[in-house]
Amino acid sequence: MRDDQDLAAPVAARLQEGVDHEFDPALVERAREAVDSGDRETLRGLVVDLHEADLAALLEALDPQERPRLIELLGSDFDFTALTELDETVRVQILEALSVETVAQGVRDIDSDDAVYILEDLDDDDKQEILGQLPMPERAALQRSLDYPEESAGRRMQTEFIAVPPFWTVGQTLDYVGETEGLPETFFEVFVVDPTYRLTGSVPLDRLLRTKRMVKLSEVVTPDRHVVKATDDQEDVARVFERYNLISSPVVDDVGRLVGVMTIDDVVDVIQEEADEDLKALGGVAGDEELSDSVWAIAKSRFAWLLLNLIAANLASFVISLFEGELQKMVALAVLMPIVASQGGNAGTQTMTVAVRALATRELRGSNARRVVAREVLVGLFNGVAFAVIMAVVVFARFGLADLGAVIALAMIINLVAAALGGILVPLGLQKLKVDPAVASGPFVTTITDVVGFFAFLGIAALWFG
Amino acid sequence: MRDDQDLAAPVAARLQEGVDHEFDPALVERAREAVDSGDRETLRGLVVDLHEADLAALLEALDPQERPRLIELLGSDFDFTALTELDETVRVQILEALSVETVAQGVRDIDSDDAVYILEDLDDDDKQEILGQLPMPERAALQRSLDYPEESAGRRMQTEFIAVPPFWTVGQTLDYVGETEGLPETFFEVFVVDPTYRLTGSVPLDRLLRTKRMVKLSEVVTPDRHVVKATDDQEDVARVFERYNLISSPVVDDVGRLVGVMTIDDVVDVIQEEADEDLKALGGVAGDEELSDSVWAIAKSRFAWLLLNLIAANLASFVISLFEGELQKMVALAVLMPIVASQGGNAGTQTMTVAVRALATRELRGSNARRVVAREVLVGLFNGVAFAVIMAVVVFARFGLADLGAVIALAMIINLVAAALGGILVPLGLQKLKVDPAVASGPFVTTITDVVGFFAFLGIAALWFG
Repeated sequence: MRDDQDLAAPVAARLQEGVDHEFDPALVERAREAVDSGDRETLRGLVVDLHEADLAALLEALDPQERPRLIELLGSDFDFTALTELDETVRVQILEALSVETVAQGVRDIDSDDAVYILEDLDDDDKQEILGQLPMPERAALQRSLDYPEESAGRRMQTEFIAVPPFWTVGQTLDYVGETEGLPETFFEVFVVDPTYRLTGSVPLDRLLRTKRMVKLSEVVTPDRHVVKATDDQEDVARVFERYNLISSPVVDDVGRLVGVMTIDDVVDVIQEEADEDLKALGGVAGDEELSDSVWAIAKSRFAWLLLNLIAANLASFVISLFEGELQKMVALAVLMPIVASQGGNAGTQTMTVAVRALATRELRGSNARRVVAREVLVGLFNGVAFAVIMAVVVFARFGLADLGAVIALAMIINLVAAALGGILVPLGLQKLKVDPAVASGPFVTTITDVVGFFAFLGIAALWFG
Repeated sequence: MRDDQDLAAPVAARLQEGVDHEFDPALVERAREAVDSGDRETLRGLVVDLHEADLAALLEALDPQERPRLIELLGSDFDFTALTELDETVRVQILEALSVETVAQGVRDIDSDDAVYILEDLDDDDKQEILGQLPMPERAALQRSLDYPEESAGRRMQTEFIAVPPFWTVGQTLDYVGETEGLPETFFEVFVVDPTYRLTGSVPLDRLLRTKRMVKLSEVVTPDRHVVKATDDQEDVARVFERYNLISSPVVDDVGRLVGVMTIDDVVDVIQEEADEDLKALGGVAGDEELSDSVWAIAKSRFAWLLLNLIAANLASFVISLFEGELQKMVALAVLMPIVASQGGNAGTQTMTVAVRALATRELRGSNARRVVAREVLVGLFNGVAFAVIMAVVVFARFGLADLGAVIALAMIINLVAAALGGILVPLGLQKLKVDPAVASGPFVTTITDVVGFFAFLGIAALWFG
């Protein structure tokens, strides 16, 4: 053990340097050589002391066909938890290349929440084959977690926890915790349950340590205010953790029986994932697009959103074609019209971004929606007037036509108010229809601002000059 | 105590229902009446058992002038931690309305990291006046935290922690923890330090509980692999917590002396904040814009970004004006040109979104930038060809001109490749120049796609038909 640590120590030190955790290329090279030559001992020395996240980074730095070989070579020295740190694409590739026995052994050795995370992306057949290799209690626990809906607390919870009856004393509990084998690797509290395993509450370790040994748990247990149900959506669970600064929370089934515990590190991943999805969705990218995806997969997935936008753009183009006569008479209209549309598009995106984010964080709710809509419309009006004045001056300076300046000014005000309305009402409406506002708002909002922008500008021009 | 809990219990239950934590309007009404009539006991009964987050929500639901009154009325029963859960604007308003004595007493009673969070937004004068009211050890600890740079670990850390020498036994340590007054409210580990307070490592509580009492700490202590420096940026700290699934981490000064501890709940806030800032920045909204800001403040802050976009739009408009002759000859060009520009803008936004996010999460680095650029260009080329074909068909169907179809097809390919290049190179370039890519990329990318879109389409048309 000592030897391995000494070998690995400089590696750990190197990884610690700098915040971007770039790998020392020499480590990757040495690991690659060891994998290629089947040199188990050298490989073990290189990786045994690596954190699972660094082990995952090493795997990603290797060529795809080397990754499963590294795992098979290391055998039980490979910590399968590392697989949870990989992109889904890479993880599935590796799992499909590994033997069922290796995967079954690997998931047995790790926490149940990590095992579920690894198994849930596999085909049903593969999943069942792997589960079939596991002894009964583990198999049943994993199967139960997998039976909960995707992205539910039941999928993310750890089924290892410490549960004791309320009549135990603090001393008894401390002795039990100190002497029992097979307890979870890390834990922050003990749970108190009744004979039917219904949750009474929990006692954090620090409170346990600061209470006299003869005190009964029933006297120090606090009922958890925010108990997570196994069927709760992981995003809702994340909001509760965030709002109440929780470190861990018991998870109960439909009748209130303790079935697992969810910890903040899983929640951090959920928060990151959700923020990631919202951000990407607003930019027109699928939430699960990853840097390791193939060109073809990415092109395909982005195509759909662009196609929607193309339809919107053609609609705007149709609006323009209604005014061909005016455009022919006054080519300056063609020169200026994209400015009105683009300014509306950008203002609409600002409002939409704020609305989508506020809906995601639950800051925007039924109770304050009216106030926020009114505020956005006023902001649109203020900025509409500001840019109306600026563009009137610019157009007059450029074309010497005061009329045209007035037309663009009016159109600008109309479009910025329309942008504000669209930017807030579209996400609110989609939310009501149970459609994710982050995914679907963009094309609607830009359609509105393009159509209104072109129609207002060219329409007013037609009336004014026609 | 019992009485208060009973009174408050239904409130807590109501808050727990539903995931959006909407307030029972009746609670707000009753709290408001109690504040207005100065009925301290009723108010206390209503709020004493509320979680700090719910107390904050109640404060926000009240009118601005009622908020400080609630706090003064409750006196020492008001938990100042609640103020950390408020929007900055609301918090500062409340703090400015409170007496220096009230704030000084309030921050004394809470954890140091929360106290710093509350104090850091105040004017220097107010800050010093409040600190002046505090007894020496607290004052010095808060001052030291406030002396660290903004958004550093030193500002977010808690200065209360348990540090013991390596020659202590597990039993000694457990007794110390169990019997000493004034220890931090929650803790997950004890830190082991040498006589000069340099950090040796830490022992998690669960390991402490599972080790025999006579064992020396020096035998069970693990050196922390990832020690946070007080001057580290909070965003970098968040990445380390995320990557290594940490629950807490010691914070050391420049010479390695233990000065505090950072816990995951603070990190969750940082992660949320950073994700929030990136998402808003991409949408052209200031990172600190809050739902509680005034119309005027929001209009002003969004104006700047829209002005930048207006300049970009005028540049694009100038490009169009170079082709006035062609537009006059063929009005179909005016009808179609926004399609090319808009499709490029959307494709550029997709690439930019992915690039900005990957830079923020450190997934995109110097070592893989070349590969990602190549991938994006290929994706742009694929989709460019796809939309070229679609638009060629649409244009032929609409205008009966095969030539015009060919022109728009060519322009579409050029602009989607330009969009891919701009979408990835602009964020990478800004990052190199130490400018936040999330904030500044948007206007540059859309300028590129507008200018290239109009120039390619109208330019090719001029050559083809001219």
